[in-house]
Amino acid sequence: MAAGTSSFMVDRREIEFVLFEYLKIQRLFDLPYYSDHSIESMTEMLTSAITLCQQHLGPLNKVGDRVGCVHNKETKAVTTPPGTQDAYKHFVENGFLTLADPAEAGGLQAPGVIASVFMEIFSSANQAFTMYPGLTKSASHVILQFGEDWMKKTCIPKIASGSWTGTMCLTEPSAGSAVGDLRSTAKRNADGSFLIKGVKQWISGGDNDFAENILHLVLARIEGAPAGIEGVSLFLVPKFRFDKNTGAIKEKNDLYCISLEEKMGIHGNSTCLMGFGDNNACQGFLIGKENQGITYMFLMMNEARIGVGLQGLGQASVAFLNAEQYAKERIQGVDIAAKKDGSNSNRIAIVNHPDVKRMLLRQRSLVEGMRALCYTTALMHDESLHATDKAQQKIAHGFLELLTPVMKAWCTDMGFYSIVQSIQTYGGYGFTKDYPVEQLLRDSKITSIYEGTNGIQALDLIGRKMRMEEGAIFMAWLEKQGKVIESHKKKKEIAKDLAVFGESLMSIGAAAKHMGEVAKKGNKHAAVVNAYPFLMAFGHTIVCGMLLEQAALALEKLAENKLSAADKRFYNNKIKTAKFFTHHILPEAKSFLANVLSQDVSCLEFEF
Amino acid sequence: MAAGTSSFMVDRREIEFVLFEYLKIQRLFDLPYYSDHSIESMTEMLTSAITLCQQHLGPLNKVGDRVGCVHNKETKAVTTPPGTQDAYKHFVENGFLTLADPAEAGGLQAPGVIASVFMEIFSSANQAFTMYPGLTKSASHVILQFGEDWMKKTCIPKIASGSWTGTMCLTEPSAGSAVGDLRSTAKRNADGSFLIKGVKQWISGGDNDFAENILHLVLARIEGAPAGIEGVSLFLVPKFRFDKNTGAIKEKNDLYCISLEEKMGIHGNSTCLMGFGDNNACQGFLIGKENQGITYMFLMMNEARIGVGLQGLGQASVAFLNAEQYAKERIQGVDIAAKKDGSNSNRIAIVNHPDVKRMLLRQRSLVEGMRALCYTTALMHDESLHATDKAQQKIAHGFLELLTPVMKAWCTDMGFYSIVQSIQTYGGYGFTKDYPVEQLLRDSKITSIYEGTNGIQALDLIGRKMRMEEGAIFMAWLEKQGKVIESHKKKKEIAKDLAVFGESLMSIGAAAKHMGEVAKKGNKHAAVVNAYPFLMAFGHTIVCGMLLEQAALALEKLAENKLSAADKRFYNNKIKTAKFFTHHILPEAKSFLANVLSQDVSCLEFEF
Repeated sequence: MAAGTSSFMVDRREIEFVLFEYLKIQRLFDLPYYSDHSIESMTEMLTSAITLCQQHLGPLNKVGDRVGCVHNKETKAVTTPPGTQDAYKHFVENGFLTLADPAEAGGLQAPGVIASVFMEIFSSANQAFTMYPGLTKSASHVILQFGEDWMKKTCIPKIASGSWTGTMCLTEPSAGSAVGDLRSTAKRNADGSFLIKGVKQWISGGDNDFAENILHLVLARIEGAPAGIEGVSLFLVPKFRFDKNTGAIKEKNDLYCISLEEKMGIHGNSTCLMGFGDNNACQGFLIGKENQGITYMFLMMNEARIGVGLQGLGQASVAFLNAEQYAKERIQGVDIAAKKDGSNSNRIAIVNHPDVKRMLLRQRSLVEGMRALCYTTALMHDESLHATDKAQQKIAHGFLELLTPVMKAWCTDMGFYSIVQSIQTYGGYGFTKDYPVEQLLRDSKITSIYEGTNGIQALDLIGRKMRMEEGAIFMAWLEKQGKVIESHKKKKEIAKDLAVFGESLMSIGAAAKHMGEVAKKGNKHAAVVNAYPFLMAFGHTIVCGMLLEQAALALEKLAENKLSAADKRFYNNKIKTAKFFTHHILPEAKSFLANVLSQDVSCLEFEF
Repeated sequence: MAAGTSSFMVDRREIEFVLFEYLKIQRLFDLPYYSDHSIESMTEMLTSAITLCQQHLGPLNKVGDRVGCVHNKETKAVTTPPGTQDAYKHFVENGFLTLADPAEAGGLQAPGVIASVFMEIFSSANQAFTMYPGLTKSASHVILQFGEDWMKKTCIPKIASGSWTGTMCLTEPSAGSAVGDLRSTAKRNADGSFLIKGVKQWISGGDNDFAENILHLVLARIEGAPAGIEGVSLFLVPKFRFDKNTGAIKEKNDLYCISLEEKMGIHGNSTCLMGFGDNNACQGFLIGKENQGITYMFLMMNEARIGVGLQGLGQASVAFLNAEQYAKERIQGVDIAAKKDGSNSNRIAIVNHPDVKRMLLRQRSLVEGMRALCYTTALMHDESLHATDKAQQKIAHGFLELLTPVMKAWCTDMGFYSIVQSIQTYGGYGFTKDYPVEQLLRDSKITSIYEGTNGIQALDLIGRKMRMEEGAIFMAWLEKQGKVIESHKKKKEIAKDLAVFGESLMSIGAAAKHMGEVAKKGNKHAAVVNAYPFLMAFGHTIVCGMLLEQAALALEKLAENKLSAADKRFYNNKIKTAKFFTHHILPEAKSFLANVLSQDVSCLEFEF
């Protein structure tokens, strides 16, 4: 891969299978809210997204990594990698920024599940770049949902046109996972605006050279407000002050990028340490009500967590597709089953070596599993908001809440481990910058950390999500899976696989019960210490069920006449992937649950 | 950590425990070959190694990463990071290059297990640097064992004094794992020397600016020799020609560094693409006999594989120690068991959060497990060479052969995954270049690939090592483990843990039997496809046994009177680590074995 070329690849057949055959998301188009859309309009948009990746986001990925963002210590301005501005322009012009926004906000009102597919694809092409529009969208959604009328009227069109961008400013140097410990302050001005003062860290896209203005959504504590998260408010703090009616740019606000983080990856995105109010002149505007900042942020955070899960998927997918292509092209060694022959005549592509096949199918099963989980979660989001049946809305909302932490943590960790296998498939070349996988590994590592570390996700799962409605949502999910087994257990090709999945489902239920009992005994440390292994076991099990459902569908398709050779191959392969997951990956759930069920608390007793 | 400072850390108490209490390597000093040494001389040397790391290798690590090696396209010369020359000088002057070499070759004739400890420590401090002396030592050992008298007489003293370095030139652009496919040629000159021609890739330390001369050990095929590995010979090819009697440097030989690889890590080491004989004037000298090159290389390869396993250990160890220290210092969040309080008064160090404890003890158990495995393997090497009892020599040799591929693959993969946990422990900071763990992750990734990928190690284990003496060595190892259980099962504190280990041992035996049966059925692909999962399960089981043996020893020590508080704490913690491994890590062996035992061959049937 030469510099400037793109390693972007996408498995469009698989994506369309999950969307239109497995999840049948076209039923959304019957809902009034999505009635402007159709399979045709969505596949056209998919083509357009792929083209954007091929022409702009993909080629920018390597440049972004090698050139990175540059901070001018004198002007405090950040220069983004060459091509970023152009890519952002094309991104917006093609409608991807506002794709899923309501029509009244200038959006296309497309299903979020479709936006999720594009998020996956854009992350495959260029995670670092995708964070600029990603965070801008998040900021825009907060303003749309909770902002004052003037903010909506003036800021939203500026964002939608691509002229202004946005950021989310939560973390401070001593308040990361413990966001309620923040020290930024807000002091009310006579005109109703606020003076903001504080330092914010890890601000993705905190400054850039392609937006006319940047709207920072900043968490800060109003003077006199309660300590902890109960006293945190949310403010809109613009890089440049502007006319509230026209959006005309005025003087620079009192904020700046102090420095850029030097990171292992995502060099194309500016990760800023931001200073607000050094000269006591940083103006901000309250969003929504006082002391409700965390509530607003958490509503957005759920969306952001789905986005991060999709990054895990997108990066693992492109790493796998590249590794697979490489393995099919790279000639080395002889078939272990062939007779030895000193000549070079019988050398084979490495995809034919059993260990390479094993590594590739591991990656493929994981990627297909992540995709099933991600799209399902995104679909739940759409249905929770716009299904016409209220009961269905409620169920979808419950499943959305339950699946979100699993999707975020499982897809980012398994995605990362999948990329490790991609590197191994390349051998020594995978360790070099001549091939894309080492960058993907570096870029993707952050996904297990940001938007709530995966440890935090696990606490959210067992401490909040599984306990919703006294466990009814969780039980409903288990029951739904039981029905999957019932529906398909007569399909003899996968009966054994479904039985293995059924055992895992039982184990999950048993482990959840065990955790509940430990919690009742009152040792809170023992109750939460195995939250992460439980989340991983749950993720393995959820995904296995989805892949087996897909295999059942593939069997039904194969029973139809007149399939093309390509389709036959595709459906046959779907069955193999599901079987591989069931027999080679799902067993890991047992080892995770062994942790949960073990009475061993040696790590709590260890004297560090 | 500021630039130029060192992140080097070492757990000396644990190292000395494994050496002198667990393995009791002092018994080596009773052997005639090692009689010049004692615990005292070795601990002095250990102090000296630690000092070298603190003063030179450690501080050079970050510089090496950031500055890297530079290739001058005109002169073709490589400049190493500033400080490399000085570090090399100190390394040699302190005796570490020739530590384990025979006295007649100017070495200190110390046990290899001690040299292994230093290899671990040097890798903790600076893997990239350590590769220069590491490969030089390998080249020197080949010359000592197989070289002509003039090579030994002239080259060895030059190497021992630090004036000349060495490399191993095996791989070519299309001959990596399949080394027998190499295309480099050798043509006999009238004077008995050879004209070498070819291109070699991934040559670590292929050029440097601190050695007066570099001796490349090059694999090439003599004109007319058989195809494949049977026709490969080994040559000494110097960067500068020299007087065979005096070593006086003459004109430059016809070879040069074409370019440096751009890598994900180990930037401090020059990884060269080397061109030999562009002007048909590259002189080389045959080492040993014609067509025996692979045999010589493989003898060295075993040593090199142990070295790579030690790198896996060293890097995981230093990553863990840094993460542990960080977790003890970093204040964030409140105790989940404490009452909520908005104030900042009850904030705790993150080491107190159960999920952080779990991650840290996972790392610690893995690191201690790797150390037990590495030192044991190295001790087998010493005993296989120098034990006075021939039967003991033979057993040690068998175990050495059996353990080497496990040690290489298990320590590098588990080491890498352990470093991933170190990053997670740091949270966002772990992703930045302000802390050492992201570099350790990047540097360590290569260890699963070079000196035989871990997939190759697994093939070596099941295809060669387990079949040695018709499986007798492997069975002897299982029996030895059974005796460990017998010896300690009356210790009630670890009886349950030993039982869990015993089950795993039985499963390993059953899986090996199953693999043998699959192999007999004649499907070679099915026979080898789960080699890697088997190796990992075997590694988990071997290590669990070692850690439980250490726990048993710790229990015995705790029963003694007059232990210091520090010793009590140390031994108590050893028991916790072993228990954590048994109940939280060993269960993974079951999931690996589920792969082996599964009849599922979906990945062989998948149509890529």
